Amino acid sequence: MHISPLAKLGKNVRVGDQTVIYDNVVIGDDSVIANNCVIGEPTSSYYERDNYQNEPTFIGSNALIRSHTIVYAGCVIGNGISTGHRVTLRENTTIGNHCKIGTNSDLQGFLELGDYCQLHSNVHLCQFSKLGNYVFIYPNTVFANDTHPPTEFVKGPTIGDFTQIGVQSSLIGDITIGEHCLIAARSMVVKSFDDFSLLIGTPAARKTDVRELKDEHEKPLYPWKNRFSRGMPWMND
Amino acid sequence: MHISPLAKLGKNVRVGDQTVIYDNVVIGDDSVIANNCVIGEPTSSYYERDNYQNEPTFIGSNALIRSHTIVYAGCVIGNGISTGHRVTLRENTTIGNHCKIGTNSDLQGFLELGDYCQLHSNVHLCQFSKLGNYVFIYPNTVFANDTHPPTEFVKGPTIGDFTQIGVQSSLIGDITIGEHCLIAARSMVVKSFDDFSLLIGTPAARKTDVRELKDEHEKPLYPWKNRFSRGMPWMND
Amino acid sequence: MHISPLAKLGKNVRVGDQTVIYDNVVIGDDSVIANNCVIGEPTSSYYERDNYQNEPTFIGSNALIRSHTIVYAGCVIGNGISTGHRVTLRENTTIGNHCKIGTNSDLQGFLELGDYCQLHSNVHLCQFSKLGNYVFIYPNTVFANDTHPPTEFVKGPTIGDFTQIGVQSSLIGDITIGEHCLIAARSMVVKSFDDFSLLIGTPAARKTDVRELKDEHEKPLYPWKNRFSRGMPWMND
Repeated sequence: MHISPLAKLGKNVRVGDQTVIYDNVVIGDDSVIANNCVIGEPTSSYYERDNYQNEPTFIGSNALIRSHTIVYAGCVIGNGISTGHRVTLRENTTIGNHCKIGTNSDLQGFLELGDYCQLHSNVHLCQFSKLGNYVFIYPNTVFANDTHPPTEFVKGPTIGDFTQIGVQSSLIGDITIGEHCLIAARSMVVKSFDDFSLLIGTPAARKTDVRELKDEHEKPLYPWKNRFSRGMPWMND
Repeated sequence: MHISPLAKLGKNVRVGDQTVIYDNVVIGDDSVIANNCVIGEPTSSYYERDNYQNEPTFIGSNALIRSHTIVYAGCVIGNGISTGHRVTLRENTTIGNHCKIGTNSDLQGFLELGDYCQLHSNVHLCQFSKLGNYVFIYPNTVFANDTHPPTEFVKGPTIGDFTQIGVQSSLIGDITIGEHCLIAARSMVVKSFDDFSLLIGTPAARKTDVRELKDEHEKPLYPWKNRFSRGMPWMND
Repeated sequence: MHISPLAKLGKNVRVGDQTVIYDNVVIGDDSVIANNCVIGEPTSSYYERDNYQNEPTFIGSNALIRSHTIVYAGCVIGNGISTGHRVTLRENTTIGNHCKIGTNSDLQGFLELGDYCQLHSNVHLCQFSKLGNYVFIYPNTVFANDTHPPTEFVKGPTIGDFTQIGVQSSLIGDITIGEHCLIAARSMVVKSFDDFSLLIGTPAARKTDVRELKDEHEKPLYPWKNRFSRGMPWMND
């Protein structure tokens, strides 16, 4: 365990074995940083410049950062974050409050998540992605920048609040997906769609309004906030 | 290297640098736990309860657990297991004898594998999955629980003996796949199928009986146990 | 940090905390091996033979090997390599000069990359794959050996110079893809194709000559070397 004298840890922060916390990291009260993590990892400029200074890195209170996770310098993370193992958050990743980031997920930096987002295992978000609030993404989904690679200029997908993105999907390019959408498993989305869209296919097309989807008792499945509350702010309503 | 005094290691067990073995872990004779592993990782209750006690964790004899692998408390693993690097086995993963689990694979716990299963790299199995014996799964395949996410109640796929699942496939929901099936690469399976099915597509459909598939000499390719024996119990027959 | 007395490090090589460098590793001048790496990882024969000797492992000058990367004994890597985090290079991986290998990528060994290749995050290359020069592969693409698994005999894909392979693609079997091809995202390629092919679909078919693809100003997008130079040898031409 090595904690820089230039890092500031709140009350009751626990840090695991072999974890390294670099300069200018600030961690809120009651957070757990498990073993073998790197917090405030220097960007590659560290290897190039003699006068390198680490960008400030913030992790809020009540964090649970599981083992082998790497958080680069310049990340700003709200309260109540929970990560799986071996998560990578590259520089300038901004994450709101109460988000979950699953094992092996890889966020490429210069991107933004709102509050209460949940990324399951092995989700890859490209630079310049933007998620609203309550966006859930399931395993092995990839966000990518460009349809005619390689290019110098890149801009990633933007996703509206409450949208759900199924396993193994791909979202590619400078596209905007509305709120309350459901992107079916294994879809490839390459253009923008409005709120409440059910998207399916490669390339994905709008099949219907998600409010048409019913369970076996003919109750509407979406918006899902009416039927799912675990970990959500309306849980004890 | 840190080994809890409450762990029990068999004869000739080797443990690598920086590996941690927690309370109530039992490891059989002649096993190798390479460097930077965590065996008996406490579940998240550890961070919540003062009187937390680690569930017992069992790894059989002749194991080869490669570096950076994490095995949670409550896993029960048979003899002769071999893992790649950075495997994650969450709590209550039950694995039979002579299984192989590839690099970066992520087993979410509360699931069961029979004997002689082989998971290649980066396979993701959801909670409540169940594999029979001799099930082989190729890279980047994902098992998922639910077709209308998010939900509280989830149940995963069940796979019969000898079934082969090609790369990048998705198996979703409470489905049962029979024995001796071949799921082609990049298939999405969302309903149950009988023994000997060749499944292809998104969503996958049954194309034929696998016993119809022949090699260039008109010999049947399946059941594969008649032509493949490396590492199998009939190897030296 | 542990460096074998049988390893040879060039001038100004920096090695991070908890990194292990095994016997018979040679590293060129001005290279950085970050923390928690394993360089010259012994193959599984190490656990089986008393007289095991590590194969020589070479990494050229100006390398940047990021943390938690594992390079097996018997790898031969040119100058200017850069890796992400947690990369796995199995035994007998041969890599030319100025290549980049992204976070979580998994190269299974007995395979070859030319110069200036760029593999993005989580690319899986099977044994006996072969990439030419300037081949770029985007996240979560998988190379696999066999269409009728399992088999004992396997041979992987061969890819020509300048070919680009989109996200989440699968390339399967003993196939040869020509130079200057573009494989669209989420394609499954199971047969060989000529130079300049645009390949799309599952299974992938040739849609057109990539030289027909134009940008919004009617300028040709391919060959891409006329419009992209970052990190390429013609960068300052």
